[in-house]
Amino acid sequence: MPLDKTALVVDALNAFQIELPSWGFANTGTRFGKFLQPAAATTLEEKFSDAAQVHRCTGVCPSIALHVLWDFPSDVQRLSAQYGVRAGAINPNLFQDQIYKYGSLGNPDAAIREHALQHILDSVQIATQLGSRDISLWFADGSNYPGTQNLRHRRRWFEEGLAAAHASLSKDQRLLVEYKPFEPAFYHTDIADWGMALSLARKAGPKAKVLVDTGHHLPGCNIEQIVTWLLHLNALGGFHFNDRKFADDDLTLGSIDPYQLFRIFHEILSSNSPAVKGIAYMIDQSHNLKGKMEAMVQSVVTAQELFAKAALVDQEKLAAAQQSCSLVEAEELFRGAFWTDVRPMLKEWREARKLPSEPLKELKKSGYMEKINKERGAKNANSGSSYA
Amino acid sequence: MPLDKTALVVDALNAFQIELPSWGFANTGTRFGKFLQPAAATTLEEKFSDAAQVHRCTGVCPSIALHVLWDFPSDVQRLSAQYGVRAGAINPNLFQDQIYKYGSLGNPDAAIREHALQHILDSVQIATQLGSRDISLWFADGSNYPGTQNLRHRRRWFEEGLAAAHASLSKDQRLLVEYKPFEPAFYHTDIADWGMALSLARKAGPKAKVLVDTGHHLPGCNIEQIVTWLLHLNALGGFHFNDRKFADDDLTLGSIDPYQLFRIFHEILSSNSPAVKGIAYMIDQSHNLKGKMEAMVQSVVTAQELFAKAALVDQEKLAAAQQSCSLVEAEELFRGAFWTDVRPMLKEWREARKLPSEPLKELKKSGYMEKINKERGAKNANSGSSYA
Amino acid sequence: MPLDKTALVVDALNAFQIELPSWGFANTGTRFGKFLQPAAATTLEEKFSDAAQVHRCTGVCPSIALHVLWDFPSDVQRLSAQYGVRAGAINPNLFQDQIYKYGSLGNPDAAIREHALQHILDSVQIATQLGSRDISLWFADGSNYPGTQNLRHRRRWFEEGLAAAHASLSKDQRLLVEYKPFEPAFYHTDIADWGMALSLARKAGPKAKVLVDTGHHLPGCNIEQIVTWLLHLNALGGFHFNDRKFADDDLTLGSIDPYQLFRIFHEILSSNSPAVKGIAYMIDQSHNLKGKMEAMVQSVVTAQELFAKAALVDQEKLAAAQQSCSLVEAEELFRGAFWTDVRPMLKEWREARKLPSEPLKELKKSGYMEKINKERGAKNANSGSSYA
Amino acid sequence: MPLDKTALVVDALNAFQIELPSWGFANTGTRFGKFLQPAAATTLEEKFSDAAQVHRCTGVCPSIALHVLWDFPSDVQRLSAQYGVRAGAINPNLFQDQIYKYGSLGNPDAAIREHALQHILDSVQIATQLGSRDISLWFADGSNYPGTQNLRHRRRWFEEGLAAAHASLSKDQRLLVEYKPFEPAFYHTDIADWGMALSLARKAGPKAKVLVDTGHHLPGCNIEQIVTWLLHLNALGGFHFNDRKFADDDLTLGSIDPYQLFRIFHEILSSNSPAVKGIAYMIDQSHNLKGKMEAMVQSVVTAQELFAKAALVDQEKLAAAQQSCSLVEAEELFRGAFWTDVRPMLKEWREARKLPSEPLKELKKSGYMEKINKERGAKNANSGSSYA
Repeated sequence: MPLDKTALVVDALNAFQIELPSWGFANTGTRFGKFLQPAAATTLEEKFSDAAQVHRCTGVCPSIALHVLWDFPSDVQRLSAQYGVRAGAINPNLFQDQIYKYGSLGNPDAAIREHALQHILDSVQIATQLGSRDISLWFADGSNYPGTQNLRHRRRWFEEGLAAAHASLSKDQRLLVEYKPFEPAFYHTDIADWGMALSLARKAGPKAKVLVDTGHHLPGCNIEQIVTWLLHLNALGGFHFNDRKFADDDLTLGSIDPYQLFRIFHEILSSNSPAVKGIAYMIDQSHNLKGKMEAMVQSVVTAQELFAKAALVDQEKLAAAQQSCSLVEAEELFRGAFWTDVRPMLKEWREARKLPSEPLKELKKSGYMEKINKERGAKNANSGSSYA
Repeated sequence: MPLDKTALVVDALNAFQIELPSWGFANTGTRFGKFLQPAAATTLEEKFSDAAQVHRCTGVCPSIALHVLWDFPSDVQRLSAQYGVRAGAINPNLFQDQIYKYGSLGNPDAAIREHALQHILDSVQIATQLGSRDISLWFADGSNYPGTQNLRHRRRWFEEGLAAAHASLSKDQRLLVEYKPFEPAFYHTDIADWGMALSLARKAGPKAKVLVDTGHHLPGCNIEQIVTWLLHLNALGGFHFNDRKFADDDLTLGSIDPYQLFRIFHEILSSNSPAVKGIAYMIDQSHNLKGKMEAMVQSVVTAQELFAKAALVDQEKLAAAQQSCSLVEAEELFRGAFWTDVRPMLKEWREARKLPSEPLKELKKSGYMEKINKERGAKNANSGSSYA
Repeated sequence: MPLDKTALVVDALNAFQIELPSWGFANTGTRFGKFLQPAAATTLEEKFSDAAQVHRCTGVCPSIALHVLWDFPSDVQRLSAQYGVRAGAINPNLFQDQIYKYGSLGNPDAAIREHALQHILDSVQIATQLGSRDISLWFADGSNYPGTQNLRHRRRWFEEGLAAAHASLSKDQRLLVEYKPFEPAFYHTDIADWGMALSLARKAGPKAKVLVDTGHHLPGCNIEQIVTWLLHLNALGGFHFNDRKFADDDLTLGSIDPYQLFRIFHEILSSNSPAVKGIAYMIDQSHNLKGKMEAMVQSVVTAQELFAKAALVDQEKLAAAQQSCSLVEAEELFRGAFWTDVRPMLKEWREARKLPSEPLKELKKSGYMEKINKERGAKNANSGSSYA
Repeated sequence: MPLDKTALVVDALNAFQIELPSWGFANTGTRFGKFLQPAAATTLEEKFSDAAQVHRCTGVCPSIALHVLWDFPSDVQRLSAQYGVRAGAINPNLFQDQIYKYGSLGNPDAAIREHALQHILDSVQIATQLGSRDISLWFADGSNYPGTQNLRHRRRWFEEGLAAAHASLSKDQRLLVEYKPFEPAFYHTDIADWGMALSLARKAGPKAKVLVDTGHHLPGCNIEQIVTWLLHLNALGGFHFNDRKFADDDLTLGSIDPYQLFRIFHEILSSNSPAVKGIAYMIDQSHNLKGKMEAMVQSVVTAQELFAKAALVDQEKLAAAQQSCSLVEAEELFRGAFWTDVRPMLKEWREARKLPSEPLKELKKSGYMEKINKERGAKNANSGSSYA
């Protein structure tokens, strides 16, 4: 029986939604400076407005991840109702305050660890009030020079802090523990890889899961294999999507190595782990140069295209070719899905749902960007130094 | 109270022994060819003889790791008695036979998996007969091209195979599970990192531990941090030491980044994990160019020197500097140990034990190399093609 | 005026031919062993026969690169006439003989340097006799340990040797100088990057050019940028195509990062350097697991597809978007070409030229593989040890 | 004749001075934030004061590199006279202004290129007025996404701009052209490696040289080999020293891989290139966590120690061992110098010159840090946001 390609793509796309980061609409940069965009959002209302516009163009972004330090206190419920976008993952900030110079949960100073924990507990509170399922934990903790910190003590403090955080979760909430090999710490990061994140999550409790940021891996790392392991161990909480060529470049997803993201999606779509259902698909990018709105719409569309391509793999035939070690046949089958131009299928799928058939064109046509450029441009012009 | 440096070094050295690999005395090479050495060992007796000579020069290498395919069947007990070197870890070979083209324990063909398992069980037998504690498992299993193999199925087969192998261990035996990110497989390796090795070891049983080969990591990886995690989780079985600049270069230990090995040793010496006692320190290098005997003695001496340096770190002062985040002070203290020239202390330690004070010079002086060059040279000249 | 896509693709494909390596049909492997294929070619006649079959299926492989050590002496002219495939680049071998243990042109021993030079001069002779334009020089020269060799002396010897080789070229011949950062040398390679290769080529003379092997770069390296520089400096001699995820993995081209090869082709197609005309497109892969014939046909087809995709980029529109820094627009335009499914266009192009419309299927259908499996299988079964 | 170690070390140290960067005394950070230090310098006078203090403690830092954007206009002559530290290299800033969003000399907008060039010409002016020999050029120019910029046009613009800059140099001045593979651009950097920097320098003119920043290389890169090439081609202008484990981590020099810096120094000390004399040794680090004064003194001392170790290599014996390919002997000799504890020799050298014998202790004892902590702390407390 030939594959019903359209049905496969439709099913996959129906099940695929992606969360936008509130900070993705604000000015960000590299350590060498920020290039300010007049249309960049500076209030939470502007971020909700932008996210809503992306959702309007794409139809698959019903939620927005929030950042506790930058987005709170605020009237999220009102904004949520007004803009039709709900609060997504809650992200504590444990790296920006001056007290975190030597770490947060891993700081040698017990008072600072306590302070960091309290911030996490407050974040859980916020999540509870907003009905958010996930608290995303990224720690900048680490050290820059061999011998300057005790790796073992810091790990113990992390175990203690995460267990305390876990204890405060309500029934359906989850802690997502992110890992990163380096930056901003350059000798060791306390949670450097998926093995460490997993071990800490396990110790914290069953509601702690691992968060995979696609940019947080050493050169050459096979990320899709890590994804299959986390699914296997029922420990995959979700993704922070972005792309990279060198370090944690935070480029728009699929822009450097689209084949890799296709492979990650294929591992998910071919898995029968119950963990698949719970995966939070989130974008975490830093658009220093691209226009923020365009970059976000472009990323969502790219994610959908790669997801659709992955859905086109004929699993049955592939299984047979893999089992018989028919390498070229298996590869051609697998890669054939990647080479298929799914853009027409996505257009159809959108039209069937009364969505704009070409989100990027729709964004341009909508006049939204001119509007925010003009409105915010004047306002922002007055506020800012040229360098942050 | 000032540190008694000599006592620290003496204690450390007294507790440090390192196992030699039988294959380290034989001709090896790169995929571009082998450069044959006339003195290379071609029989197990020659390997025992060489290992005994290294032990004679250094006094810290009482055992030799054996390779089932290349070293058996043979009269190990006799050789062991005759040369005064005991059998160490037993290494099955699961990569060289033509049937392993698509894998061993991860092969889609059940018969081949069975064959591989049987070879492991046979190796456990051999270990039991020889009184060897450790069976070292390195798997070349993986795939070269995306989509050509099913990562999930292969993992399941590994879980089954390792559990069966574990079941056959006698009371004091251990399975050491090695990981490697790539080579000879270039897209995915079934056991690619310490997280996967640990998970498989856990699933197999309590006597399965992780084996860290220092060359088997992606660029930039902080190996000492992995070591502390494995110690913490009581899962560190041992080391295969060698050094690298690029990929798995298999260079002599400490030759490219000696500071890193110093840091690994420091993590071990400052740990209070019960796992420290069980660590098997083993060399696993491939000397394509250096003379095998010289390279081995040089490696043992370098390992001792770096171990002694690590022992010199003033743990108490370091703990205080780390706790107060006195970074420069902590680093200077830590690195000061590395900068200390321990060669005179090692000389003393050796002399106190009636060992040759300078092992490399002793090797040269002993006439052993001339002897084997001559004896084996003629024999080997007749046997070999110039390229393998 | 809208782009005439078909015309662009047709023009590009008409100008694109790719040379096959004789050694790509023989058994090869990794340092952990070779998996022998019954159909692997063991004589030069078999290699010509295989190359001819690939040419028959694809129509774009009229030449075969030859390897002096493995393929000569032999009756190339007869084979060439009989199989309809001409001799391409001539590849000296300067790494396999035991005398090259410490290098060839960079060896501290003047007699060995002389020997290596003589082999290159002989290779130039062979090229002259066969009417081959290019002599491809890859050197394994380097060292494994800091301090063990004098980088400066070795460079001088290379300068002398290459100048002498250049002096022996006939009017239309070229020396192609390849670079590689590591392997089989693991501390330094004498010609480690394009800057060193270029400098040596310049010193040798105007007929020396740089050869880019896509697998010979450090992680993250932007290869297409190097290609534009070499074109700019009129120093790009050609390519050895293959793909990699980690080190020099020698995987089939485009199998890991197809977007990168697309970008390389785009730089060539959008260049107006006179050097474009002289580019030698060559495959240099090592198929340890894939069937050699299938892998070769697959590679040729993939190269054509990526070349065709690159030809689809609307240069005029792209130039405008680049000039105005319309990043998202430029990227969508650029990547839109990559996402276009060119397979139907290639089919048409082939049919218009009376070539098999689907080369891989044609190969299967032709019965050639069964034939060589059977004929060579019996022969090879008798000859080989299981490990090389 | 045995080596006179003391004489070798004394000669080397006498010839070794290192320039401090004015920005190394100011607050800096990562893209995730800056940790503000109360004692950080915020005026040029404070930077001169700090540099003078480092010079007082070490005796080998008579000059300070200046940054045009941050340090000018100002009364450098007065400061120089007052603090006894002269102006060193002049560093234009071509990355921070908002107009440089898409590049400086490589910007598609001719007016911005002109603006950037004018800034360089102004910097040359400043250098002339101050009697500074070197203008150090680091460009952040590049792009983040494939296809968004034209690599060829940008190169041409660089060629034009650098030639114009070169034309404005006075007789003894030099342009130092720095390269960097990535960051802040993440797909391509216009001057990505030494080959590109060299080619641009050559095109600009004979007074343009290459500047090697030790942190600006891809993983595994053999930096000392590049250094020998630049010396050979008479194109090495100088160094920006720092250390790294992952990307461009900007850690204090020698803190991660001290053996590598030793090897770089060895290549310089064993070279007979006339270019050695002109090498500008400069520090370029970013101390986010370490105290700035301590880190600077520590770096200077470490550089001296590694330079002294490199001077201890017995060149004559090494040459013989290298020539005879006595690998282990050569390595032991080479590495023996690295293992030698040179701290006592440095102490002697300092005492003989009436310098503080232990610079770090001297710094602590001097009370300088308490003083600036107190004086500047109050001032800075009022000025700053917590995040930049």
